[in-house]
Amino acid sequence: MLLRLGDIVDALGGTLVGSPDTQLSRLSPLDVAQAGSLSFLSHPKYASQLLHTRASVVIVSEDGRVHARPDQVLVVTPQPYLYFAKLTQWWRKAQMGQDAPSSAAREPLIHPSAVIHPEARVHASAKVGPFCVIERGASVEEGSWLKSRVTLSENCQVGRGCIVHSGVVIGADGFGFAKDPSVAQSLSGSSMDGGTLWVKIEQLGAVQIGDEVEIGANTCIDRGALEDTVIGHGVKLDNLIQIAHNVHIGAHTAMAACVGVAGSAKIGQFCTVGGGAIVLGHLELTDHVHISAATVVTRSITKPGHYSGIYPLQDNALWEKNAVTLKQAYKLRERIMALEKGLQTSSGT
Amino acid sequence: MLLRLGDIVDALGGTLVGSPDTQLSRLSPLDVAQAGSLSFLSHPKYASQLLHTRASVVIVSEDGRVHARPDQVLVVTPQPYLYFAKLTQWWRKAQMGQDAPSSAAREPLIHPSAVIHPEARVHASAKVGPFCVIERGASVEEGSWLKSRVTLSENCQVGRGCIVHSGVVIGADGFGFAKDPSVAQSLSGSSMDGGTLWVKIEQLGAVQIGDEVEIGANTCIDRGALEDTVIGHGVKLDNLIQIAHNVHIGAHTAMAACVGVAGSAKIGQFCTVGGGAIVLGHLELTDHVHISAATVVTRSITKPGHYSGIYPLQDNALWEKNAVTLKQAYKLRERIMALEKGLQTSSGT
Amino acid sequence: MLLRLGDIVDALGGTLVGSPDTQLSRLSPLDVAQAGSLSFLSHPKYASQLLHTRASVVIVSEDGRVHARPDQVLVVTPQPYLYFAKLTQWWRKAQMGQDAPSSAAREPLIHPSAVIHPEARVHASAKVGPFCVIERGASVEEGSWLKSRVTLSENCQVGRGCIVHSGVVIGADGFGFAKDPSVAQSLSGSSMDGGTLWVKIEQLGAVQIGDEVEIGANTCIDRGALEDTVIGHGVKLDNLIQIAHNVHIGAHTAMAACVGVAGSAKIGQFCTVGGGAIVLGHLELTDHVHISAATVVTRSITKPGHYSGIYPLQDNALWEKNAVTLKQAYKLRERIMALEKGLQTSSGT
Repeated sequence: MLLRLGDIVDALGGTLVGSPDTQLSRLSPLDVAQAGSLSFLSHPKYASQLLHTRASVVIVSEDGRVHARPDQVLVVTPQPYLYFAKLTQWWRKAQMGQDAPSSAAREPLIHPSAVIHPEARVHASAKVGPFCVIERGASVEEGSWLKSRVTLSENCQVGRGCIVHSGVVIGADGFGFAKDPSVAQSLSGSSMDGGTLWVKIEQLGAVQIGDEVEIGANTCIDRGALEDTVIGHGVKLDNLIQIAHNVHIGAHTAMAACVGVAGSAKIGQFCTVGGGAIVLGHLELTDHVHISAATVVTRSITKPGHYSGIYPLQDNALWEKNAVTLKQAYKLRERIMALEKGLQTSSGT
Repeated sequence: MLLRLGDIVDALGGTLVGSPDTQLSRLSPLDVAQAGSLSFLSHPKYASQLLHTRASVVIVSEDGRVHARPDQVLVVTPQPYLYFAKLTQWWRKAQMGQDAPSSAAREPLIHPSAVIHPEARVHASAKVGPFCVIERGASVEEGSWLKSRVTLSENCQVGRGCIVHSGVVIGADGFGFAKDPSVAQSLSGSSMDGGTLWVKIEQLGAVQIGDEVEIGANTCIDRGALEDTVIGHGVKLDNLIQIAHNVHIGAHTAMAACVGVAGSAKIGQFCTVGGGAIVLGHLELTDHVHISAATVVTRSITKPGHYSGIYPLQDNALWEKNAVTLKQAYKLRERIMALEKGLQTSSGT
Repeated sequence: MLLRLGDIVDALGGTLVGSPDTQLSRLSPLDVAQAGSLSFLSHPKYASQLLHTRASVVIVSEDGRVHARPDQVLVVTPQPYLYFAKLTQWWRKAQMGQDAPSSAAREPLIHPSAVIHPEARVHASAKVGPFCVIERGASVEEGSWLKSRVTLSENCQVGRGCIVHSGVVIGADGFGFAKDPSVAQSLSGSSMDGGTLWVKIEQLGAVQIGDEVEIGANTCIDRGALEDTVIGHGVKLDNLIQIAHNVHIGAHTAMAACVGVAGSAKIGQFCTVGGGAIVLGHLELTDHVHISAATVVTRSITKPGHYSGIYPLQDNALWEKNAVTLKQAYKLRERIMALEKGLQTSSGT
C-alpha cells in the first residue's frame, strides 16, 4: 500500500513542509523508520532521533521542528501525538479499503454463529462477532462492535460507538453472599449435611455502559446487586480488568490491565489507574485522581492528585534483609523515641 | 411487577409489623429506596438512614427496630442480611415466573451450540449454556449450571448445585516443566537448533469440584499434574482467579476477584482471601484464615486469624521519599543499634 | 492401564535396578504412592520419603539411590525430574492409545465449529478446537494446538509446536490512546457533547509467536501499535497473563500466572517471572533475570540475578502498627540523623 502525503494533510490538517507527492508505505517509530516511513516526534527527549531518522516524513510540533535536518519532510502540528492517533485511524481505513474492497462489504455485521436472544436489541449499525452471546433484554447501541466471544448478559446495555474485545464478560453475577451463622456452627466442612455457609444474593441489577467506551480482552464487569453497575462515557478499560458489582466509573477515566475494582467503589471522572492496582470496596475516588501501577487503594481519596504505594524492587538478598526490619518497623520508632528521651537526659536538658 | 408483602413473609418467615397487603415493586438500598421499595438495615452504622428512608418496608433486627419511624412497615428477623439474601432468591424466581412464563419453560437446558463429548456425563437437570465445551470423561452433576463459554476439560468433575460463570476454564494444563540443563548450555536463544529448555510435564490429573460451588467469570482452575486439583463443597470463587495445579481448597472458603493460588497450595476450610492476593506454592493455610486484599502469602499459616501485608497508599511525592528510605531499612536498624550503644557509653552506664 | 517398566526404560533410558517386568498402573508423588505407582525423588529434602514409600518403582539420581531400601526397584538417571517429565509425555501417549484407539483417530484436527477466515493459513498438522476464531491473514504453523475458544486475530502468527490453552486472546488491540487537550477542557463528564478525551490509536502491528511456546488459559497478548509484539521461541506463559502491545519476550523465558507486562517492555532470554508480578512499560530486563512473585518491576534491570519487592505478610494487628510507621519512614531517618548529630555533640566529639 502506497499513500500520498498530500492526501493525509488534506484529510487531517497540519502544515506540510516538503512535497505533497511524497509516497508513504508505513507508519513507524522514529528509531526503526525507513524510506517510506511516516513517523512522529512527540516528546523532546527523542529529539536526537530526529536528526538520524530514515523516515520519509516526520510529524513534529513547532518546538520539535528545530531538531530536524533541513531536507526532512515534515508535518507541523501543535499536538504531534494526537495527530498521529488520528493518522492511525485514517491509515487503517485506507488499508481496509485497499485490502478488501469487496469482501469487507460482503461480511455481515452479525456473525451467523452469534447467539442473540429474540428479546435483545442490537442496533442495525452494530457489529457482533463470532460466538458472542447477547441475552434477553440486553441492548447494543449504534456503531458498537462486540468482537469474538463476548458475553452480554440479561438486561445489560452497551452505548454508542463502543469497542468490546474478545472474551469480555459483561453482567456476570456480582460476588454477593450472606453468611448463615446457624450453618457455620453445625458444618463439618467435609459434608454438605449442614447446608451452605454462604447464601447467594441474587444479583438483580444489570450493567450500563456509556458511549465511546472500550473494554479490553477477557475483562469482566459484574451486574449490580440491586442497582446497576455503571461505566461512564468515554471510559477506556484495558485487558483482564475486574469491575465488581455496583461500581461506578466516571466519564473519561482510563484503567490499565489487571486492575481490580471491588464492589460499590465509586471512581470519579478523568482518573487513571495503573496496571495491577486494586481499589477496595465502598471507597470513593474524586475526579482527576491518578493511581500508580500495582498500588492498593485502601481509603477514599477526596483530593485530586497522584497516589502510590508500591514496595520498592531490590536485589533479593537486600530485600530479605529489609523485609526482616520492616516486620518490626514500629519498634524502630519506639527505639528512636527512647533514644531521643535518653539524649535529652544525658545532655542535661 | 408488584408483589405482596404478606406472600414474602409467608415464604421466608419473620415478624411482620404493618399491613401484609403492602405492595412492593423493587428491592433497594435504604438510601435510594422509594415508595414500593423493600429495603433492609443490616448494620447499626446505617441506622440513621432508617429514619429518613422512603422505603415502603424495611427488614430489621430487634435492635435495629428502635431506629424506625413509628409508622414504618417492618419485617423483624434476627439476621436481616441473611433474610435479604433469601429474599433476592425468592424475588428472582417470582420475576422469572412473571416475565417469561412460557418461554423459559421452552428453553432447552442444553444449548444446541454446546459441544459435549459423547463420553461426557451431564445430569438431566443440569443447564449448559451457549458455546460451552465439555470434554471426554467430564461430568456435571445435578442442578449445576454452566453459563456461556465455559470449558470443562477431560475427566474434570463439577458437583451438584454449582454455578459456573462465563469464560471459566476448568482443567487446562497446570504449568509444569522440567529444565533440561544440557539444552540450557547449548542454546542460543535466537534459534531452536539447541532444542527446548523447558520440557513439558504432561498434566495427568484432573479437577474435582464439590457441591454448591460458584466460580466467577474468566476464572481458571488447572488440572493436577499427577493427582487432582480439589475444590471443596460450598467454595465461592469470584472472577479472574487463578487456581494452579494440585491446589486443594477447603469447604466454604471464599475468594474475591483476581486472586492467584500457586501450585500445590493447600487452603483450609472457612477461609477468606481478599481480592488480588497471591498465595505462593506448596504452602498450607489452616482453617479460618483470613487474608487481606492484595496480600502476598509467602509462608504457611498454622494459626487461624487475619493476616495482611500491603504497602500503604500515599501521595506519590511522599511515597517516593519513603521508598528511598525503605530500600535501606536494615541500615536504619543498624544506626539505631549504634546510637543505643553510643548513648550507653556517653551516659557512663 | 498396566505398563511394563522395561518398556519405559527402553524408550527413555536410565539404569534399571530390579525387574523389567514390574507392572505399573500410575504415576504418583512419593508420599501418596501405592503398589503399582511409579514415583520419583528429585530433591534431597524428600529423601526420607523414599524409605517409606509404597511406590513399586522410584526414579532417582546416583546420590538419591543411597536413601532407597535395598529391595526397592529403581531407575537411576542423572536428572530424575527431567526423566519424570519425559515419562509423563510417554505415559500420556500410551494412555491415549489405549483409551481411544479409534475415536481419537476419527476426530478431525479442525473442529467443525471453529471459524477460520479463508485468508488465514492453518498447517495441515495443526489442531484447532471448538469455538476458536482465526482471523484474516493469521497463521498457525506445524503441529501447533489451539484448544477451545482461542482467538487469533488478524495477521497474528503462531509458530511450530505451540500449545494455546482455552480462552486465550492473541492480537486484541493494544491499549493506546492520545489525549485531546482541547476536548479535556470543554468536557463536562456527564455528556458526550464535548467529544472524546481519549483518541484511539489504531493498533497496526500484529503478534508473532515463536516455536514451542505454551500459552495458559485466558491469557492475553495484544497486537503492537506499529511494529509487532514478539514472543520468542520456547517461551512458557501460564494463565491469566497480560502481555501488552510492543512487548518483546526473549526465548525460553517463563512466567507464572497473573503476571502483567506493560507496553513496550523488553524482557530477555532465560528469565523467570513469578506469579502476579508487574513489569512496567518501556523497561528492559537483560537475560537471566528472575523476578519474585508479586514484585513490581519499576526500573530496567541490566544485571542478571534475583530481584524482589514484596511487602512482608503479618498478623493484621501488627501490620497496622507497621504501616503507620512506614508512611513516615523518611522521618525516622531524619530523626536518626538528628540523634547521631546530638550524640556527637553530647559526647564532646
